[in-house]
Amino acid sequence: MSHVDQGRLELMHKYWNAANYLTIGQIYLQANPLLREPLRPDHIKPRLLGHWGTSPGLSLIYVHLNRLIQDHDANIIYLAGPGHGGPALLANVYLEGTYSEIYPKISQDTEGMQHLFRQFSTPGGVPSHVSVPTPGSIHEGGELGYVLSHAFGAAFDNPDLIVAAVVGDGEAETAPLEGAWKSLQFLNPRRDGAVLPILHLNGYKISGPTVLGRASNEHIHQLLSGHGYDVHFVEGDEPMQVHQDFAATLDVCYAKIRSYQEDARQHGSTQRPAWPVIVLRTPKGWTGPKEVDGMAIEGTFRAHQVPVAEVRTNAEHMHIFENWLRSYHPEELFDEQGHLVPELAQLVPVGDRRMGANPNANGGKLLVDLDLPAFTDYGIEVTKPATELHESTRQLGKMLRDIFVRNAEQQNFRFFCPDETNSNRLGNIFEVENRCSVEAISPSDDHVSADGRVMEVLSEHLCQGWLEGYLLTGRHGLFATYEAFAMVSASMTIQHAKWLEESIKLPWRQPVSSLNILLTSTCWRNDHNGFSHQGPGLIDTMLTKKGSVARIYLPPDANCLLSVADHCLRSHDYVNLIVIDKQPQLQWLNQQDAIDHCTRGLSTWNWASNDEHVEPDVVMACAGDIPTLETIAAAWWLRHHIPELKVRVVNVVDLMTLYPSFLHPHGLDETTFVDHFTADKPVVFAFHGYPRAIHEIVHGRTNPARFHVRGFNEEGTTTTPFDMVVLNGMSRYQLCIEAMRRATRVHGLTPPLIAECNDMLARHKSYIRTNLEDMPEVSDWHWTE
Amino acid sequence: MSHVDQGRLELMHKYWNAANYLTIGQIYLQANPLLREPLRPDHIKPRLLGHWGTSPGLSLIYVHLNRLIQDHDANIIYLAGPGHGGPALLANVYLEGTYSEIYPKISQDTEGMQHLFRQFSTPGGVPSHVSVPTPGSIHEGGELGYVLSHAFGAAFDNPDLIVAAVVGDGEAETAPLEGAWKSLQFLNPRRDGAVLPILHLNGYKISGPTVLGRASNEHIHQLLSGHGYDVHFVEGDEPMQVHQDFAATLDVCYAKIRSYQEDARQHGSTQRPAWPVIVLRTPKGWTGPKEVDGMAIEGTFRAHQVPVAEVRTNAEHMHIFENWLRSYHPEELFDEQGHLVPELAQLVPVGDRRMGANPNANGGKLLVDLDLPAFTDYGIEVTKPATELHESTRQLGKMLRDIFVRNAEQQNFRFFCPDETNSNRLGNIFEVENRCSVEAISPSDDHVSADGRVMEVLSEHLCQGWLEGYLLTGRHGLFATYEAFAMVSASMTIQHAKWLEESIKLPWRQPVSSLNILLTSTCWRNDHNGFSHQGPGLIDTMLTKKGSVARIYLPPDANCLLSVADHCLRSHDYVNLIVIDKQPQLQWLNQQDAIDHCTRGLSTWNWASNDEHVEPDVVMACAGDIPTLETIAAAWWLRHHIPELKVRVVNVVDLMTLYPSFLHPHGLDETTFVDHFTADKPVVFAFHGYPRAIHEIVHGRTNPARFHVRGFNEEGTTTTPFDMVVLNGMSRYQLCIEAMRRATRVHGLTPPLIAECNDMLARHKSYIRTNLEDMPEVSDWHWTE
Repeated sequence: MSHVDQGRLELMHKYWNAANYLTIGQIYLQANPLLREPLRPDHIKPRLLGHWGTSPGLSLIYVHLNRLIQDHDANIIYLAGPGHGGPALLANVYLEGTYSEIYPKISQDTEGMQHLFRQFSTPGGVPSHVSVPTPGSIHEGGELGYVLSHAFGAAFDNPDLIVAAVVGDGEAETAPLEGAWKSLQFLNPRRDGAVLPILHLNGYKISGPTVLGRASNEHIHQLLSGHGYDVHFVEGDEPMQVHQDFAATLDVCYAKIRSYQEDARQHGSTQRPAWPVIVLRTPKGWTGPKEVDGMAIEGTFRAHQVPVAEVRTNAEHMHIFENWLRSYHPEELFDEQGHLVPELAQLVPVGDRRMGANPNANGGKLLVDLDLPAFTDYGIEVTKPATELHESTRQLGKMLRDIFVRNAEQQNFRFFCPDETNSNRLGNIFEVENRCSVEAISPSDDHVSADGRVMEVLSEHLCQGWLEGYLLTGRHGLFATYEAFAMVSASMTIQHAKWLEESIKLPWRQPVSSLNILLTSTCWRNDHNGFSHQGPGLIDTMLTKKGSVARIYLPPDANCLLSVADHCLRSHDYVNLIVIDKQPQLQWLNQQDAIDHCTRGLSTWNWASNDEHVEPDVVMACAGDIPTLETIAAAWWLRHHIPELKVRVVNVVDLMTLYPSFLHPHGLDETTFVDHFTADKPVVFAFHGYPRAIHEIVHGRTNPARFHVRGFNEEGTTTTPFDMVVLNGMSRYQLCIEAMRRATRVHGLTPPLIAECNDMLARHKSYIRTNLEDMPEVSDWHWTE
Repeated sequence: MSHVDQGRLELMHKYWNAANYLTIGQIYLQANPLLREPLRPDHIKPRLLGHWGTSPGLSLIYVHLNRLIQDHDANIIYLAGPGHGGPALLANVYLEGTYSEIYPKISQDTEGMQHLFRQFSTPGGVPSHVSVPTPGSIHEGGELGYVLSHAFGAAFDNPDLIVAAVVGDGEAETAPLEGAWKSLQFLNPRRDGAVLPILHLNGYKISGPTVLGRASNEHIHQLLSGHGYDVHFVEGDEPMQVHQDFAATLDVCYAKIRSYQEDARQHGSTQRPAWPVIVLRTPKGWTGPKEVDGMAIEGTFRAHQVPVAEVRTNAEHMHIFENWLRSYHPEELFDEQGHLVPELAQLVPVGDRRMGANPNANGGKLLVDLDLPAFTDYGIEVTKPATELHESTRQLGKMLRDIFVRNAEQQNFRFFCPDETNSNRLGNIFEVENRCSVEAISPSDDHVSADGRVMEVLSEHLCQGWLEGYLLTGRHGLFATYEAFAMVSASMTIQHAKWLEESIKLPWRQPVSSLNILLTSTCWRNDHNGFSHQGPGLIDTMLTKKGSVARIYLPPDANCLLSVADHCLRSHDYVNLIVIDKQPQLQWLNQQDAIDHCTRGLSTWNWASNDEHVEPDVVMACAGDIPTLETIAAAWWLRHHIPELKVRVVNVVDLMTLYPSFLHPHGLDETTFVDHFTADKPVVFAFHGYPRAIHEIVHGRTNPARFHVRGFNEEGTTTTPFDMVVLNGMSRYQLCIEAMRRATRVHGLTPPLIAECNDMLARHKSYIRTNLEDMPEVSDWHWTE
């Protein structure tokens, strides 16, 4: 074990005291920040909020990482998993000066310190957890579970970076965190940076003991060794001893990381290293009050938030509090003006090496745009609508293949998928790129390599968490997944959207590449799968997110998909949801028409309509591939059987165009909206998702009650594609019937045709239901011209 | 190691052959089920769908568990994690006769076998994964990750039961599965049954290698030992050897389970046992074709689905297929009539011991209703609305306490929560009940015991998965969680709702207790937390689920909460979402009024209105506690400042009443709806959740465009409760302004009052924003009479 100079450790201990002091100040003080006056009740905040319990440990780690950075000019960022360690991280970025650079009002002097204290957990101030406004953070300490997946995502293709990822023992109980330890099977020491997980155990979550907090070192050692790590324990409650042990352990871990990287980079080693992990056991609320009102505090769950309460009104508590606060000797830490004393200030790393200033934690600063091929190179020749079948996603796969080629040098693009790249018809990627695995490769493996950038792991959480970490450190990517199971990581999509909603308001946060999510294997085409595989609900979730970041695209064919994908891959600071199925589907638009259509977001398709020069009797709108198919077929049937009925077909590719423009920047102005949908004609709308979502969107538009929507009505089973649309009332015949019924208000001719439609429907239904084998599809062509 | 009689193993091997034969038949054959005729192309299904890869292993396990059941009269259910092992499980429940008892058309003869084959993965048939219609199942093989949490939930308070839980190596990669291994820290051998996890590794998921499939036995041993298990490996590709090893291992595991239980039950041992886990490594697609077209199949990812395709058209493939199929010697397994031969039929356990017939897998059969106290015992005296503040959830906590007491004997109620029981003001539970942990208890722990039935683990996935398993085996419970983080397990809520949507259509599935989810710590009252903690999105998710199972309640006060909770705890086959905050809140209704109100689902609150005997000028509607507060305050202000303006207040507690009645059974008939909301008057609606959800709901109602909704607009930060409603445009002043503006169409008096409201708002806003400390709330009382 190396040994760190005692004098330096003592300075580090003082620096740690300063961080702890500032942490407590944020929770308690609204005045007299340096205790230069005798402490009075009115110096104490009227409402005490914040989390002391985890904070001393977080600060200890910060201080020691600073030393590592100084000694090695190391490039390190700090991800704080423990949800409410906010005040500790704020204390540290304040001490190192990055906070004041970004928020000049919170200056490094007495006045600034007072502002730092006052803003914390105060209306209009900052939350008690690490959040977007915290410099140095790419990880919100709110919904727990993602610190390791974010850390590994940050480290991928970032060879010089070390990501210190602190896992609290509460977070360690979450499923996404437990599922993320295995990320090291995907970390390649040759090209990726390193993650140094620090499992910080203090025994409790809010009020109960934790599983790992209560586990023996032997069990923890087995568990983490089983995941492939080299486990280092540091434990204690005697600060100077813990400083010594932790410093020595950090040195060992750092040396191992660099030696593994050297082995791989200089000596060509292809073995997966046993990367180090540190288990740090220190008391909850360490250095805080030992006992209050006869109850043990330090080391118990009672230290989780405010260890001593009612300080204003209880003299005994005030006494405990003041002794506690003065135990850090603020007079030795800060000078008269509130500046950190020089001997401590010298412990701060320089410039962008300060973890609060590291550009990897403000990834837009490092963002290099993707070198994208012309998406039109992958387009499909469509001389006439509805004459050819293609798997649209296959064209995207070809484009993704070439994106990999063009960006091979800059190494800033990855593709994430729960083992469905081929199944989703994106397999052309494998012409140039492999699945990533750092484990031994078997001869029967298909395109698997340690150098692969196709990240396939059967975990939506891990796919998405990695991608988020990759994006927030300035890179690009795409997450493709089964539509129904996109809900598995829906809460992550929400939290990332919220991150972006906040970050775009902060001028110092540079734009990052958008989170692009491709949903395929959709509810309408799950053929041999059952009802559990059918759920378009992520659309509904995304509709609740702000117009400033949320985008939903439903390209109906390959050329539209390519145009949309190109746009999404170029965009910044959005969450782009792209929904399209993988099965062969009819193609509608040639390339130029597709580009124009996607640029507008929605179009009237004149070639499918017969309302030239007149107002239509009914508007048939559609969004999504299968709804488009059924709508076009329905419109064809109506045009051929009731030519005097004027039908207009409107296709929507950008769902947000339907929102009133005050709600979403893509919302069409009302005049344009009425140009397409008329002011008062019935609209029969076939929608990919849950139908009533459309009502949520079009409220505020002219006469919204006339919108009659068909969509996925939560009717599903193992059945044919056509039966699926019948079950959900969205088949061509049902759309025809609806259109005729609604147009009947202006037309007197339709009842016999409605009967005919009903008859066709009945025949098809009974055919579907009685004849289980050799089931021919209702031809998708029988209605083409 | 024990040794199982070779003759018996040979019979079991034949039985296994029969199961494999039936599995392949389901994937391939539409005729000639017993190969009694020469195989012709037209006997083969035109579209080959299904998953062979995992099936032989699943059947092997089934056959061996049957032996264990026979030898020990053991009470065992089988949870199949591997998503698409459907045909294997169907084969086994068919062989044991339970399938034919439930579905007589699929009889145990040649004709029934043909039906069995035809229905599989066929339109109108059954899906290729284990699903609700599969007897013996409480676990859908769709969205992977929950087999262990469901298994442990089933085992809790089920002392005699052993749950065999098969984890596929694909599922083993998911976060929820990895997070569920630790469930054994919560399993008490004295009172709970046992879970026997069988990690079935075959090396691949769909097309890529898996992490554990590629891991060494040493690493797997460490990992599972680290989780606390006693690890047993069985591996091989030589069937008879694997039979012998697996049988012996099962015997060892069974003996250990029973001895641990005896230690705890007879000898008072309180140590947590090292429960056994089996790691079974067998080839993917075991016993299938070794090679097709020169490519290795068995043991590779190519065996995942259909190992040999194009059988109809490719003679070589047909040859491979026929040889494969005949290798099981169907003529030795089934007699001329297609009955299983008697020497194999004797391997089937008896009656309800058959795993397809075990009542634990059809939990409604075992359901004992909760003994509920009169919820009115916990009611709050409300002599006049809006005069008292109470923490409403605290009253529920008292009721839950007494539910624990009254059902202590029948041991069929548990409470699940991610460590927030106290924080959510439900702490009265701890007067009689403890947190559950089977680990060592520390003196500083608070109400922790191995006998506790408060299941606190910081994992929404685990809380919900356990509860689902507990409910589906015939018990009762409640899951309480932070509103925003309920989205973490939203996909589980969806899948459970889908399970219920399917199961209520199956007459043989007995009703089970509802999944009750209490959301508290809501978006409106997250005070010191930030934007990441504010999200009412689970409401939107639930709105997409069918009216047959989905319920959403927004009780505005304690008496309503109690009435709603009582109803939900008595109900069956629903997912009940109950949303209410934990902070002190004004109380509105006395007990009888609350009961009447909740029974109706919504009411006009005359005491808050001034529209007696006339149509109101404006309806002020509200749903949720904070929206109710703001609406009542706004109505008060309007009544006092513009008494000639007629205001009606409608409070909605059962959100589903607003749906058109054809969509949801709770939907009010249109006449009643109009009685409350009028036919054409403006409605200003203050809603707890995302506002546009209301438009989704009320579409189809009379004149829905007149609904103007305020709600959570995704505006949040660390701030005061009043600032939150201002930020989201839902404060009393903003509601007043909106009401006046809308009523202005019929009224000419309001502009100066609108100005006054705006002025009040501005004053409050500037006050909130500039004066960070000692921030007084806008009094909630200043408007009471």
